[in-house]
Amino acid sequence: MADAVTPRDEDYSQWYQDVVRNGQLAENSPARGCMIIKPNGMALWENMRDQLDQMFKDTGHQNYYFPLFIPERYMEREAEHVEGFAKECAVVTHSRLTQDEEGDLVPDPESELGENYIVRPTSETIIWDTYSKWIQSYRDLPLLYNQWANVVRWEMRPRLFLRTAEFLWQEGHTAHATETEAVEEAERMLDVYTTFAEEYMAMPVLQGRKTESERFPGAVDTYCIEAMMQDGKALQAGTSHFLGQNFAKAFDCTFTNEDNEEEYVWATSWGVSTRLIGGLIMTHSDDQGLVLPPKLAPHQVVIVPLFFDDDQEGPVMETCERLQERLEDHGIRVKMDQNHTQSPGWRFSEHELRGVPLRLAIGPRDLENDNVEMARRDTQEKEVVPQDGIAERVSDTLDDIQHALRERAQDRQADNTRVVEDYDAFREVIGRGGFAWAHWDGTPETEARIQEETSATIRLIPFDREDHEEGEDMLTGEPSEGRVLFAQAY
Amino acid sequence: MADAVTPRDEDYSQWYQDVVRNGQLAENSPARGCMIIKPNGMALWENMRDQLDQMFKDTGHQNYYFPLFIPERYMEREAEHVEGFAKECAVVTHSRLTQDEEGDLVPDPESELGENYIVRPTSETIIWDTYSKWIQSYRDLPLLYNQWANVVRWEMRPRLFLRTAEFLWQEGHTAHATETEAVEEAERMLDVYTTFAEEYMAMPVLQGRKTESERFPGAVDTYCIEAMMQDGKALQAGTSHFLGQNFAKAFDCTFTNEDNEEEYVWATSWGVSTRLIGGLIMTHSDDQGLVLPPKLAPHQVVIVPLFFDDDQEGPVMETCERLQERLEDHGIRVKMDQNHTQSPGWRFSEHELRGVPLRLAIGPRDLENDNVEMARRDTQEKEVVPQDGIAERVSDTLDDIQHALRERAQDRQADNTRVVEDYDAFREVIGRGGFAWAHWDGTPETEARIQEETSATIRLIPFDREDHEEGEDMLTGEPSEGRVLFAQAY
Repeated sequence: MADAVTPRDEDYSQWYQDVVRNGQLAENSPARGCMIIKPNGMALWENMRDQLDQMFKDTGHQNYYFPLFIPERYMEREAEHVEGFAKECAVVTHSRLTQDEEGDLVPDPESELGENYIVRPTSETIIWDTYSKWIQSYRDLPLLYNQWANVVRWEMRPRLFLRTAEFLWQEGHTAHATETEAVEEAERMLDVYTTFAEEYMAMPVLQGRKTESERFPGAVDTYCIEAMMQDGKALQAGTSHFLGQNFAKAFDCTFTNEDNEEEYVWATSWGVSTRLIGGLIMTHSDDQGLVLPPKLAPHQVVIVPLFFDDDQEGPVMETCERLQERLEDHGIRVKMDQNHTQSPGWRFSEHELRGVPLRLAIGPRDLENDNVEMARRDTQEKEVVPQDGIAERVSDTLDDIQHALRERAQDRQADNTRVVEDYDAFREVIGRGGFAWAHWDGTPETEARIQEETSATIRLIPFDREDHEEGEDMLTGEPSEGRVLFAQAY
Repeated sequence: MADAVTPRDEDYSQWYQDVVRNGQLAENSPARGCMIIKPNGMALWENMRDQLDQMFKDTGHQNYYFPLFIPERYMEREAEHVEGFAKECAVVTHSRLTQDEEGDLVPDPESELGENYIVRPTSETIIWDTYSKWIQSYRDLPLLYNQWANVVRWEMRPRLFLRTAEFLWQEGHTAHATETEAVEEAERMLDVYTTFAEEYMAMPVLQGRKTESERFPGAVDTYCIEAMMQDGKALQAGTSHFLGQNFAKAFDCTFTNEDNEEEYVWATSWGVSTRLIGGLIMTHSDDQGLVLPPKLAPHQVVIVPLFFDDDQEGPVMETCERLQERLEDHGIRVKMDQNHTQSPGWRFSEHELRGVPLRLAIGPRDLENDNVEMARRDTQEKEVVPQDGIAERVSDTLDDIQHALRERAQDRQADNTRVVEDYDAFREVIGRGGFAWAHWDGTPETEARIQEETSATIRLIPFDREDHEEGEDMLTGEPSEGRVLFAQAY
């Protein structure tokens, strides 16, 4: 049996690691800071990817694939971009290994590259270099493309899913004839992320824009969604950037508009990554391990056949297989437990640790009574229900679970979010783990000072600031145009 | 309009490039030897990936994901493996860029890695290091896993899809308690590849095993499928390796068997890549451009609405949209042509170049007669058919096309394959582009001499050699255990 899970109250960080390990989601690899995504984690990511991919296609996007390597000189073209990414780049300098005098494998000095390559930390540079060749006229616009890829950003303090040197993600890169169109696109994709987070991950999020200091390097505006984790910290769950004409200017990407004038192209980019899995874990899981929303769980239901002698095996298995078939006919993803030699307790715990939303156990007595024991992972409630009508019952219960998970997360977020009027109250909210809406004077200096003193950062400036009252910065007393959201963050 | 396609007879290599470019499949990138896979190429690859993935899952495999980076020292552990891959590795030596005195971006000397990383050319080493931790007992076996990933093998003479520094692929890595089980697995996956090539790609293949010199570095036996391209050359389309206990020994991966004895684990690995797209192109395409089998084509049908004044637009579009709906209800992938401002000829040619298997054109006269003009991409045949029953008609025609493509490729392969008795006949067959079954004495020396003199290599040794007669090597006269397949190859 898998190791026990450390309770959240005892050691939150250890709890997270225990949930990931026992959930068979991922583990550390011999390549520093990189993770091995295990089959249960990969199946979860594939469900997330497929759903997002459908949403991208429904909003008119197509997939393509750009190279892993970016020529070094491309990074120099956009000043803020290089500033933001140069410090965490994997640099490829040689194309061959050879043996040195001691017989050790070393890069062959003769294979040194004339120009080094960067392993992509994100692909704006190489993509906008190419767009400058693809785009001539307004008739070529818009370009609405996305890629699913691995990227590398060297991390000093890696944590599985949350911060890894290599991660999997998608990056959308669109090109537009007008500023308005590009802004609308960036907003549209933030809405897609919001829908995905709330309706599929059952993870409520807040939308807004980043302050200058938290903006994507090279963006004019970064929009984000932020979710509250169970320790009250914020997780940036997705970003969508209005890039203005910055990359078009850096890569000389112009088009002839309808009036036959040359203009720079307007751009957006947007991405979410395997980091979302970290968010999913910290939104729903409990001291028994992983809890997954039914819409994304690799298996939505596990059937556990229970028999204690050979006579019972045939009839129990037969009923279980018929049950599986009926559920699968309803489009439900079912796993059949095959660990017959283990105790029921061990088997139940195993599926709990893996976060299967619903467990159906069938033993000889259930056969006699045409019953099934149904156990919800989220509430741990057990119920004996008739086999008759079971598919509808399971289907409804999965819907209930999906709904309940979101409600609980929503309530937790509401309970731990405060509107604060002064710095003492602010420190108190941040100190016990929570979101604080507070007035800010709009300067990076005050933002930096608050971060230094409380470790809290401005997570977002809300879009609808007109609804917010004006006020005074809680620290400096300077005028504020409205409250912004502060929290400690992952 | 896209550029014309160079006829095959005139310049086969240029024809290939023209088909790829006009088919909007891929283009060269600024990262040397790496390609940009364009949306039409990516949609094709995604269809191939999804189909293969389903076949892997149907044979009991699950996906996972291992890191992009492999620590340098891992490559040294399996002697043949390092020999095979060290010469074409991208080596990561630094984790940061900085500006030098002239302001140029250079790898920061202070970020030099203690141990270099190799960008994976294949993942046996890092995976078997991990398997040695995952596997303790026979109860942990078999492990039946696969990953979809990008890999890098430095290429001196890159060609889009066929040979690129970075390519996309899948690599299966399985672990077994017995030799028999591992061999069966390697054979099973070769059969999966064969089914995929023949039934989905409509590309007939020959199965067999590789000679020692063509074996995967570190394998005991490499099984392969080989297909004939239109120039009579062979393309290795997929390989499945029985790795014996080589990697288990290199990474000290043992298990306790049922008799409580320690044994090394038995291994397989198997892979296909975006190279298959090169094979698909060279199997079916013609002088009008790309031809795609309906089962894999991104769009199976394009509907081209034709109208010449505003009055006609409404009724024509209405009929076309109704038609699209009816086809989509039958599960057919449909594209609606929107290039109304271009001439019909331009539009027809555009879809031909992209390889859409079936074109339906509807103009005002078709409306009057309740007809549709249907044109097959493969035969270029046009036919006027009634709108009534169109979905069934289209569906049947797509089946016909799929079948016809395979038949044509099968015939071409048969027509260009010869059983040869002597070296003159052999040189003649190889010289005009073809497959030759010939006797070989089994030595690497003879194999090398034939390659030097004719550029032909042994593509495979058939599995069922007992069916083949014994004979004498065509070159040396030494005894031969049976004929092997020779061809020039990509």
